[in-house]
Amino acid sequence: MLTKEKVQQRNWQPIIKQFEAVVGKNGVMQRREELITYECDGLTSYRQRPAVVVLPRTTEQVAEILKICDRYNVGWVARGAGTGLSGGALPVEDCVLIVTALMSKILSIDLENQRVVVQPGVINNWVTQAVSGAGFFYAPDPSSQIICSIGGNVAENSGGVHCLKYGVTTNHVLGLKIVTPDGSIVDIGGELPEMPGYDLTGIFVGSEGTLGIATEITLKIVKVPESICVILADFNTVEEAGGAVSDIISSGIIPGGIEMMDNFSINAVEDVVGTNCYPRDAGAILLVEIDGLQVEVDTNKQLISEICTNNGARTITSASDPETRLILWKGRKAAFAAMGKISPDYYVQDGVIPRTKLPYVLKEIEELGKKHGYYVANVFHAGDGNLHPLILYDNAVHGALEQVEELGGEILKLCVKVGGSISGEHGIGADKRCYMPEMFSETDLETMQWVRQVFNPKGLANPGKIFPTPRTCGEGAKVNTNKNFESIERF
Amino acid sequence: MLTKEKVQQRNWQPIIKQFEAVVGKNGVMQRREELITYECDGLTSYRQRPAVVVLPRTTEQVAEILKICDRYNVGWVARGAGTGLSGGALPVEDCVLIVTALMSKILSIDLENQRVVVQPGVINNWVTQAVSGAGFFYAPDPSSQIICSIGGNVAENSGGVHCLKYGVTTNHVLGLKIVTPDGSIVDIGGELPEMPGYDLTGIFVGSEGTLGIATEITLKIVKVPESICVILADFNTVEEAGGAVSDIISSGIIPGGIEMMDNFSINAVEDVVGTNCYPRDAGAILLVEIDGLQVEVDTNKQLISEICTNNGARTITSASDPETRLILWKGRKAAFAAMGKISPDYYVQDGVIPRTKLPYVLKEIEELGKKHGYYVANVFHAGDGNLHPLILYDNAVHGALEQVEELGGEILKLCVKVGGSISGEHGIGADKRCYMPEMFSETDLETMQWVRQVFNPKGLANPGKIFPTPRTCGEGAKVNTNKNFESIERF
Repeated sequence: MLTKEKVQQRNWQPIIKQFEAVVGKNGVMQRREELITYECDGLTSYRQRPAVVVLPRTTEQVAEILKICDRYNVGWVARGAGTGLSGGALPVEDCVLIVTALMSKILSIDLENQRVVVQPGVINNWVTQAVSGAGFFYAPDPSSQIICSIGGNVAENSGGVHCLKYGVTTNHVLGLKIVTPDGSIVDIGGELPEMPGYDLTGIFVGSEGTLGIATEITLKIVKVPESICVILADFNTVEEAGGAVSDIISSGIIPGGIEMMDNFSINAVEDVVGTNCYPRDAGAILLVEIDGLQVEVDTNKQLISEICTNNGARTITSASDPETRLILWKGRKAAFAAMGKISPDYYVQDGVIPRTKLPYVLKEIEELGKKHGYYVANVFHAGDGNLHPLILYDNAVHGALEQVEELGGEILKLCVKVGGSISGEHGIGADKRCYMPEMFSETDLETMQWVRQVFNPKGLANPGKIFPTPRTCGEGAKVNTNKNFESIERF
Repeated sequence: MLTKEKVQQRNWQPIIKQFEAVVGKNGVMQRREELITYECDGLTSYRQRPAVVVLPRTTEQVAEILKICDRYNVGWVARGAGTGLSGGALPVEDCVLIVTALMSKILSIDLENQRVVVQPGVINNWVTQAVSGAGFFYAPDPSSQIICSIGGNVAENSGGVHCLKYGVTTNHVLGLKIVTPDGSIVDIGGELPEMPGYDLTGIFVGSEGTLGIATEITLKIVKVPESICVILADFNTVEEAGGAVSDIISSGIIPGGIEMMDNFSINAVEDVVGTNCYPRDAGAILLVEIDGLQVEVDTNKQLISEICTNNGARTITSASDPETRLILWKGRKAAFAAMGKISPDYYVQDGVIPRTKLPYVLKEIEELGKKHGYYVANVFHAGDGNLHPLILYDNAVHGALEQVEELGGEILKLCVKVGGSISGEHGIGADKRCYMPEMFSETDLETMQWVRQVFNPKGLANPGKIFPTPRTCGEGAKVNTNKNFESIERF
């Protein structure tokens, strides 16, 4: 690891010269105005300018760059499109930011075996666009899917509205070509769903850039269903909507997705977007998307409507044609943006709870918000129990961010208390590492760090992410301090 | 690692005393006649008697046993029910065999959240039995499901007939309590489908006992579908049946399973079991199980029947009631046993190929069999492209086993050549480690071994499995010899 002393002494010129020899002069950025773009990702409350930005185009260039970093003991952070919400692509002081934006080729499409091989800079939505003509799609669909990159999705194991039925990124990555921090090129997984040997693909997906850089990703694509239908149901209370979610799941139906919005979110969306679909007086709405064979969709639509009615739904609307479906989805898709318009700032939390605890947890979150004096809007993947409480605040108010972070932390602890998790799909990144000891024992975290050491023995790959350290989490935080993993050499 | 010298000198008495202090006298076996049962698993062609067998009942006892092994530098092998087909539970000389048969409690059932927590010795089928009254089942269903244990399923990442739709073991394990070889108790994963941090659950499942022993396993259970239907279609040729498989999958239907049996297997089964269901003159039959809502099953049944007819099916039978379904399945389920009756010995191979290569590969396997002078029967998971060629031979014939292993190896190389894998669901174990370099580069294998070192630094956990060594694979074999992983200490 870098010491402060080394940082101050670093002479970047020979390093940059070597980078330029690999990627050319226009593949390296070091001017202040060029670097500003890269000082944060989607978690805008943390900022740190990198020393230099490098833009490789090939696996071999990535390997050369990492070898240079290894030689000079320089920390590096890989960045896809920079849309992540947990600060996973946040630079650290004196680091190299490796941006995969120019690695944006779809390398091969094999429709017969339902596989697409892409470079990491390929935008999520491009995969679906490339295969939709043949009747396929790429299932993981984060809200940012029109701008986020597959490489970032792999790092954060991204989810989306359709995870409930189709699973998250890890369920759609068959194999990877990765470059490890020492510059080795390693193929993990392959082209088949299951491969012998250790499942390194599983460990790499979601490792938030701490184990290496994926330079080729083999994705599984899925057949577009014959029929899709969106059901909108509105309820007097969040409890009733939560009851409907539980009953739908326990009926055995697996919808593509079940999304919930509370009264605050409904009104925010209607104020800003004006969909005129979501009743402003509803305590909560559910958007349930079902897909499959036409007969299956018809039957499930009826069953879900009955379940919603039995749980107190006031009105139920549904749409099967693409245009009307889009109208029903529009407000949900625009919900985060709407919050940005009605509030100077907002902080998106990401936690998971068992579905059965939905009504209790939403009530508690409301209480926590009141206690701290902030509005908390709830727009989330109800079917997965994946909450996204949006805390509205004004960053210009002195101390507000700290209070909001405290409130966010209390929400996470609540999630853990009821048997849930501190992250559903946004990752731990820089933002949540202090909360890892809430979920994992010291031995559990140590075991993860031993694994990290195998790939990343010098701690150069995405320093300061996932794992808590006393320095960043404050003296009082429960962090494992008995081993200095960052100084351990690989055997 | 043990050296030959140490082996000869080992005084087992103090070690056994310590084991007895942990599990009691009746938890330790060391008499020759007691040990004979444990000298092989389902791969009966390899045999090695362990020095001692220990039967723990709790996580803490497992931890104490592993600490003793660690202290005395004794290699150990964990064994579930011993039904594995790749020699994953094969003892090595002078080792402790840790048998989980007494850890057979179902610890908790949470129907609401669809989770069951079990000890590793719980038999696969017991999980379904425990929850079927409430309308749930445990999906992974290896042929041996009435005798194989969940611990063994976790080690080998077992599959089964229904993997096509439901996935293999790794898709149904949410979390694990494991004991690592140094005796640490670590919780990995949890109760939710996705957890933050590295996916250690994914890496543990399928690691064939080389990373530790799972002592509590949190399984996901699935709702029993409203309707199930089995379709039996017979064809003149394997090629026609293969074409039907491809067309079913590419139609977007995902059946629970698609099984294929060739003419040889059909006749073997009819000779022995006499189902009177499978036409003896058919080149191949397909058994397609579909499940879901009644309307969905009805629609898919019609579509699949049409696809089979278009591919030349001669007759199509189907059954929805449980009794008739069992009759249609009976021959398939008894196929391996039938081979055991018509041939003195048989060797089950396990390889995966892209579905589209089915007709070509089956033809080639037939040619390979002819070349070596052995019958090869094919009974397999056609929907997944997971072949199970059964090579019939007589072990009493001198040299036969070696020839059969050579033929088996050629079949595996063929699988790899067409873009497949050397194991679908039986694991690498002791049997196939020489073929790992056919699939993985030296760097790939090294990376896996670095990970192994983290958990298993002294190489005490299941020695001699998964990874090739020059000693076992012959001088000519392509194995990575440049690093002595077995002698590397953990940091």
